[in-house]
Amino acid sequence: MENKVSVGLLGLGVVGSGVVQIINEHQEKLKHQLGVTVEVKRILVRNLEKAREVDVDPSLLTVNPDDVLNDSEIDVVIEVMGGIDTAKDYILQAFAAKKHVISANKDLVALHGPELHAEAEKNKCDFFYEASVAGGIPILRGITDGLSSDRIERVMGIVNGTTNYILTKMAEEGATYEAALKQAQELGFAEADPTADVEGLDAARKMAILARLAFSAPVDLDDVKVSGISNITAEDIQNGNELGYTMKLIGYADFKNGELETHVLPTFLSNEHPLAAVKNEYNAVYVHGKAVGETMFYGPGAGSLPTATAIVSDLVAVVKNIRLGVTGEQVVNSYYKKALKDESERFSQYYLRVNVEDETGVFSKLSNLFHEHEISLKRIIQRPNDEKKTAEIIVISHQTSEENFTNLLEKIQKLDVLKEISSYYRVEGDGNE
Amino acid sequence: MENKVSVGLLGLGVVGSGVVQIINEHQEKLKHQLGVTVEVKRILVRNLEKAREVDVDPSLLTVNPDDVLNDSEIDVVIEVMGGIDTAKDYILQAFAAKKHVISANKDLVALHGPELHAEAEKNKCDFFYEASVAGGIPILRGITDGLSSDRIERVMGIVNGTTNYILTKMAEEGATYEAALKQAQELGFAEADPTADVEGLDAARKMAILARLAFSAPVDLDDVKVSGISNITAEDIQNGNELGYTMKLIGYADFKNGELETHVLPTFLSNEHPLAAVKNEYNAVYVHGKAVGETMFYGPGAGSLPTATAIVSDLVAVVKNIRLGVTGEQVVNSYYKKALKDESERFSQYYLRVNVEDETGVFSKLSNLFHEHEISLKRIIQRPNDEKKTAEIIVISHQTSEENFTNLLEKIQKLDVLKEISSYYRVEGDGNE
Repeated sequence: MENKVSVGLLGLGVVGSGVVQIINEHQEKLKHQLGVTVEVKRILVRNLEKAREVDVDPSLLTVNPDDVLNDSEIDVVIEVMGGIDTAKDYILQAFAAKKHVISANKDLVALHGPELHAEAEKNKCDFFYEASVAGGIPILRGITDGLSSDRIERVMGIVNGTTNYILTKMAEEGATYEAALKQAQELGFAEADPTADVEGLDAARKMAILARLAFSAPVDLDDVKVSGISNITAEDIQNGNELGYTMKLIGYADFKNGELETHVLPTFLSNEHPLAAVKNEYNAVYVHGKAVGETMFYGPGAGSLPTATAIVSDLVAVVKNIRLGVTGEQVVNSYYKKALKDESERFSQYYLRVNVEDETGVFSKLSNLFHEHEISLKRIIQRPNDEKKTAEIIVISHQTSEENFTNLLEKIQKLDVLKEISSYYRVEGDGNE
Repeated sequence: MENKVSVGLLGLGVVGSGVVQIINEHQEKLKHQLGVTVEVKRILVRNLEKAREVDVDPSLLTVNPDDVLNDSEIDVVIEVMGGIDTAKDYILQAFAAKKHVISANKDLVALHGPELHAEAEKNKCDFFYEASVAGGIPILRGITDGLSSDRIERVMGIVNGTTNYILTKMAEEGATYEAALKQAQELGFAEADPTADVEGLDAARKMAILARLAFSAPVDLDDVKVSGISNITAEDIQNGNELGYTMKLIGYADFKNGELETHVLPTFLSNEHPLAAVKNEYNAVYVHGKAVGETMFYGPGAGSLPTATAIVSDLVAVVKNIRLGVTGEQVVNSYYKKALKDESERFSQYYLRVNVEDETGVFSKLSNLFHEHEISLKRIIQRPNDEKKTAEIIVISHQTSEENFTNLLEKIQKLDVLKEISSYYRVEGDGNE
């Protein structure tokens, strides 16, 4: 062990620039904590001429990946280039060269995490990716270390800042989805092509990573059922608000007795639930441990310096492991077997909004169907539209299985008085359920 | 290194029973994580005959501290007996016998933490106390590890569950302080003698520990200015509510450029602040890091299993360090020097409620005084009491120094129209301040 750890970066975009800035600004503190100096030795970029957001010696930059991956003096590779195939290839090369790897790449880890871990372990290398989930929130370390003596049973999170910003604006300003998205794009909280965020794919990737670590189970991205927020109306948000619920894009993962349920779905959260108060672009992850009960971790889900802070925290952990000679020993193997819950075992409350003909007895027809399916109702709003001679009925149900609720919807669909099933959503966070 | 780590407990009350239960239930998981078995070998109790909340082999119990402290096979001592002098004496004996120590004792750590750390370091022993602050929330590890690459500038927390429960009941049910305290006592959230909680001393101890670790600075318990909640009226809470603020007992610590400000004070928090949504007996700690920005850790502040979970997390960390041969190396030394901010440098917004004679020009007399002190007003409520011919004036100010506000209060005290200065509190969490 020398008195210096050398780092190579793959990428120098927004996050990479933050990493260089933090390493430079914290030289003294890092040396104090680690007993060694940390040096950025080489940085792979696409374009040597491009202006950078951070002061960096131009001689560190290279367009040749071998200058990072085959430099025997580089101990740790930080991958902040994004993308899947090339990033994976570089990381595998780094492991083969006995370099430790830190990545912020949720797409890659969600898809190929287990394979990359196996390679890391084979080469006695560390592989950390705190920055891949919920940016600046130290949630992965919180799950793997802080709660190491507990059995985590459920994780619920707001893990996508773009959608949370959009839903906050819709709730607070009565904005439509389209208007709120446009505002988010203007402020840089949403991409020009927002698909991965608004359709829930980004959140699903993070949930796959979170669930894998929380449950020590082999969770695949395909296990995460996904629906996005692009069909949510200002009307539904307003209805929820009247009833004491806030619409959030909730990532959910539940694991008991080897049975897994995980999804990313627009969900009405009771205003009493701590996640309901998480606004704008912020993220939060709510963890239910068997012994500890409810805990929540809140913070910025993205941004150059928050994300870079998470990466440098990983770097500190790697350097400590290097000094102790225990790299490649973190436990990430899937310890438990996994079966997916089927829809008869997936329970939830539901919000349902239907449009019906406004005639005598229409509500009892509807409520009879709920009764037949043994679903009891918690809250009801009925609103006539005199002009159209229709009525809108909105209910919040008590808990029922997804199977049961789907069967109910089929029956409602056949009701003679039905004009339209306008919308339905899961409901979470009612304390007494 | 043998394939077994032996633990001795000092105390078998509520928390100690939880520790034994968790170690017993998690044998398999602990062995998987640590590669060794963990065994509770001896437990110091006061009374051998007393019924226990956990199944425990009676032969483990002893009333002789030497059976724990001088048993050369015991590697780790867990102190859950409470109190100051005896606990300190036992812990020092444990260090002298090269045993690692885990403590849940905030009173002891707040008062004697630096001395105990020095002894631990001298004997190459670990000394951890995650459970001493905010029970089940892994906040100390979050601060020292997760944010290790950042500079923490401010910590704000709800770190006492009793007072948070009382203030929640006062806010939600309009209860008086006395009625809410009684309810808390009946539910076991408040002690028969609630002084240490309601007067803020318990919170102050936790803030001293948090500030020490967050800032790497030598923070003493005496540095924490304290005021409790026993004088708060339902009226003030209602006024705050009208203005968009929630009353919380806030522990605050701020450290920039070597200057420290720390206190525990009843504070009106803007409802937009994440801490305002923390209800009932829950705790939360809000951390502002220079790079990461705002993060918050939320969870149960007390309880047998949550607290025991934190202790066993410490145990996992100690066992890992034993296996790595790096015990006694955690960095807890005070790295920065500390000066206390004087009152001209302590800035805050304020809530002020005064009772005045209801005559023409009374508000302008008051507002002139604010103007003279260059304190601008953000919100004002004026309420006449026709019967008494008085008026109540409530204001929320913009930021000013404590010195300036104190001078203002002296001037107000001399106003001819003043009947009474009813109350004043700090105000935090307005985003635009």
